[in-house]
Amino acid sequence: MKKITLLINCPDKKGIIATVTNFIVNKKGNTVYIEQHIDRELGEFFMRLECEFDEDEEKLALFKDSFNKVVADNYNMHWEMYNSEKKPKMALFVSKYDHCLYDILGRYASGELKVKIPVIISNHVDLKPIAHSFNIPFKHIPVTKENKAQAEIEQLALLKEHKIDFIVLARYMQILSPNFVDQFPNAIINIHHSFLPAFPGAKPYHSAYKRGVKIIGATSHYVTSDLDEGPIIEQEIVRVSHIHNVQDFILKGRDLEKIVLSRAIKHHIERKVLVYSNKTVIFS
Amino acid sequence: MKKITLLINCPDKKGIIATVTNFIVNKKGNTVYIEQHIDRELGEFFMRLECEFDEDEEKLALFKDSFNKVVADNYNMHWEMYNSEKKPKMALFVSKYDHCLYDILGRYASGELKVKIPVIISNHVDLKPIAHSFNIPFKHIPVTKENKAQAEIEQLALLKEHKIDFIVLARYMQILSPNFVDQFPNAIINIHHSFLPAFPGAKPYHSAYKRGVKIIGATSHYVTSDLDEGPIIEQEIVRVSHIHNVQDFILKGRDLEKIVLSRAIKHHIERKVLVYSNKTVIFS
Amino acid sequence: MKKITLLINCPDKKGIIATVTNFIVNKKGNTVYIEQHIDRELGEFFMRLECEFDEDEEKLALFKDSFNKVVADNYNMHWEMYNSEKKPKMALFVSKYDHCLYDILGRYASGELKVKIPVIISNHVDLKPIAHSFNIPFKHIPVTKENKAQAEIEQLALLKEHKIDFIVLARYMQILSPNFVDQFPNAIINIHHSFLPAFPGAKPYHSAYKRGVKIIGATSHYVTSDLDEGPIIEQEIVRVSHIHNVQDFILKGRDLEKIVLSRAIKHHIERKVLVYSNKTVIFS
Amino acid sequence: MKKITLLINCPDKKGIIATVTNFIVNKKGNTVYIEQHIDRELGEFFMRLECEFDEDEEKLALFKDSFNKVVADNYNMHWEMYNSEKKPKMALFVSKYDHCLYDILGRYASGELKVKIPVIISNHVDLKPIAHSFNIPFKHIPVTKENKAQAEIEQLALLKEHKIDFIVLARYMQILSPNFVDQFPNAIINIHHSFLPAFPGAKPYHSAYKRGVKIIGATSHYVTSDLDEGPIIEQEIVRVSHIHNVQDFILKGRDLEKIVLSRAIKHHIERKVLVYSNKTVIFS
Repeated sequence: MKKITLLINCPDKKGIIATVTNFIVNKKGNTVYIEQHIDRELGEFFMRLECEFDEDEEKLALFKDSFNKVVADNYNMHWEMYNSEKKPKMALFVSKYDHCLYDILGRYASGELKVKIPVIISNHVDLKPIAHSFNIPFKHIPVTKENKAQAEIEQLALLKEHKIDFIVLARYMQILSPNFVDQFPNAIINIHHSFLPAFPGAKPYHSAYKRGVKIIGATSHYVTSDLDEGPIIEQEIVRVSHIHNVQDFILKGRDLEKIVLSRAIKHHIERKVLVYSNKTVIFS
Repeated sequence: MKKITLLINCPDKKGIIATVTNFIVNKKGNTVYIEQHIDRELGEFFMRLECEFDEDEEKLALFKDSFNKVVADNYNMHWEMYNSEKKPKMALFVSKYDHCLYDILGRYASGELKVKIPVIISNHVDLKPIAHSFNIPFKHIPVTKENKAQAEIEQLALLKEHKIDFIVLARYMQILSPNFVDQFPNAIINIHHSFLPAFPGAKPYHSAYKRGVKIIGATSHYVTSDLDEGPIIEQEIVRVSHIHNVQDFILKGRDLEKIVLSRAIKHHIERKVLVYSNKTVIFS
Repeated sequence: MKKITLLINCPDKKGIIATVTNFIVNKKGNTVYIEQHIDRELGEFFMRLECEFDEDEEKLALFKDSFNKVVADNYNMHWEMYNSEKKPKMALFVSKYDHCLYDILGRYASGELKVKIPVIISNHVDLKPIAHSFNIPFKHIPVTKENKAQAEIEQLALLKEHKIDFIVLARYMQILSPNFVDQFPNAIINIHHSFLPAFPGAKPYHSAYKRGVKIIGATSHYVTSDLDEGPIIEQEIVRVSHIHNVQDFILKGRDLEKIVLSRAIKHHIERKVLVYSNKTVIFS
Repeated sequence: MKKITLLINCPDKKGIIATVTNFIVNKKGNTVYIEQHIDRELGEFFMRLECEFDEDEEKLALFKDSFNKVVADNYNMHWEMYNSEKKPKMALFVSKYDHCLYDILGRYASGELKVKIPVIISNHVDLKPIAHSFNIPFKHIPVTKENKAQAEIEQLALLKEHKIDFIVLARYMQILSPNFVDQFPNAIINIHHSFLPAFPGAKPYHSAYKRGVKIIGATSHYVTSDLDEGPIIEQEIVRVSHIHNVQDFILKGRDLEKIVLSRAIKHHIERKVLVYSNKTVIFS
């Protein structure tokens, strides 16, 4: 049996669900799970569909062709197809903070994250021992104001070499150039240590402390060329009070960052995220 | 246009989604929203489906007949059909506590709850003025150990007279007999003031205080003949600490009870609840 | 027995606690509850203290004089003294939204809020029936761009007449002038329907929806002359997802607003709030 | 400067605070932080007090003697004194689950937990490599039904040898005997993977799944001879729905267990927990 996942969006119209599910029946497939969303304001239809095919029934390439002709073109669909059993390849970008890296690698080692991690890239050497203790190659590519363009060329070459599907910035302390970002649309996941859109940019815990908020948060989002403005994937919060100082905020925030980032990675790996209009549809 | 909602469950099998959506297409209907769940452990398939028909295309009775023959019988389905535009009729049972009643009637008056409330039934007269201020008939049926059977006969007559679809026990302080409960399967919603299954029965806030818990909760569930053992619809919690006494628990709990009960009522009204194996599937 | 509450802040220094508690012992009082906070960054000391005196032992005025001479002057203290049994006088300002008003008056009627409400002031007549159903005087003072200054004079006269201690803006849809605000420092409580500092100003739910956040919030704060920039008293949040539209945000937000505003009012009534450096210390 | 922390409880009586703070002033100390709680129902007074002394002013032993004579005996106090700068010694008991161990050691390594860990004791060898990667001695003491008494003798000898102050059961899958427990009163911290008192005993996630709860939790408590009945230190919860199976519960629960256990350990290390009447007072 071959399992595939379809992610579809198109202008909302009559009969989409029946058309798609019929197409699958005709291809001798079985729809095992369907989820759907309609954005009434934008008139947009979203669907995530898991289906199974007997192995020889359908070649993936043929399916694609056929689906385009019979279904997608008629509905002006944007769609993607994934082999559900194939683990995507994730690159980790880190700097000096280790808590998110430890957390991700722990979940990876225990099998919680169904992903391959061909490489960890860092602008510092500090976290190399952690990478090695999990048997993952670690590449040190220093980044300075002067060499940034060259460094990104090296990074991109590495990503290409390892056929990386998506990137996770696990508290990577450099801003990626628009050119870099353009090459991984909706495929770079960042963790920002505030409840966006509050406190974008640097030192959000300090700003939150100064403002005297009673709740702090963390936000995971896809990176776009607008800093901290990309589509939000997941957020979580924790209560604070006057007894907590900035250092307490940072410690509490670390727990938030780990949880929010790992949830976002899981959503992405399981192909449960559709981006539209700078927002995300997160299928359950 | 006529909108209907279908709630379906049956043993999981290939092709259910396509069969159902095709049936609807053949009846000149349009499936506008579908949600689905499979309980892999029990091998059970669940689906909620909203569809639209041109008004004269299909008579409801004919649809039912046809659906049974063409679809349901083949899959051994249990299914229900609702006219999405028809407001269900809800009866409220209350005693002396007013907070849930105020909350429900406030949401009803503002149009948040799409429901009709033909009658409020109480074993005490205390809340009569509140019922009247919202222009809802209030029936006082005292209940004692001696007259309980007779009181339930009166209650059931009232419910029948008003063609009540479901009952909400808004802190009603009497236990309904198994006979009464049997006449409203999965149609009596209770609010229990604890995080079930912790602290069933009487005085849960006192028990929670005595045990020294750090979080208290409230639980809304369908009433079955086993006290506080029915399928859970919704739960919510709030943190407490050593500084809170029983009275504080009760005050904090009141806010929980209001929110949990109103959420459960909304799920029920919108036909988003499927009961199976003493648990609920809550479609989103 | 006479119960008083002291709220104190001053530069942090050795011996403050012993000095204050001794003073009370010497005045034949008994300190029954003490809470304390030190802001190490600012070097500021905060204390809330509940004490009891035998009725004739000490006249309030004498206590004040004596405390200033013996204690406060030496430590450069800012301090306030409240008679714990005296209910403060609260004025409610409302416009057209009724949910916060219903919630506050319900808690008031049940005795949960230990406060007097001499008057409800509104720029619209819509909520007059609610005020009357709770037997509270309702004053309609229309506010337009042209008459705003005059309207505030009327409002201030009413507040003075009723000896109002603090004001609650229960979704009052007008901005108070700096002059008005100056007359009630740290004594005007507002509810803002966002998780400040995200989405200040008008239509925060619309902005939150547009940004695609996964969590929405509400914030209660003291009003200062900077719009939505005053010291935050309380915040709360609720999760949302792509399935919720703006109307859903508004409905979910209503529940947040009620809870956050009522918590803030309670903190204020119980003299548990100290404002410093545009932030709040909330004693437990 | 020498910092000490006092934890006090006694029957509530007039003048305790002034008596204690005066005693400290007389000993040339400075009370820098005080927190207090009164359980009105039980008439019990609780206080946590941080104070500083010039190094030579007072010998610890003399302080104790003097405090007993001048203060404690008069008030029938139970009290404990800690050197705030001395890190307590914690032993970890583990079996096969690694998530709590990883989490605790990560926080330990980063300096978040101000504690010494002289030894990790396990009835299995599986987690030995983790202990070693953090440079902590690992002792394998197998436990069977037959050798349990002997195994506990070995464990107790190890604990004595290392002068262990308290024990953390980080998903240790053996039940300690009453005799063992008696030797560490209020000094054995367990993490139970349910929202106690719901689902005590084995396989709580399975029970929670079967019951169809909408929220699952984890509970950290001191171990007493009554299984899962000891004083609760901390609890936390996470929402679940019908889409989650037992395996999902377990995964979500792991995150809860880590957070709840680490919070409990921190409270204990910072001497913020007072146990009374099988409940905890947790100072902030």
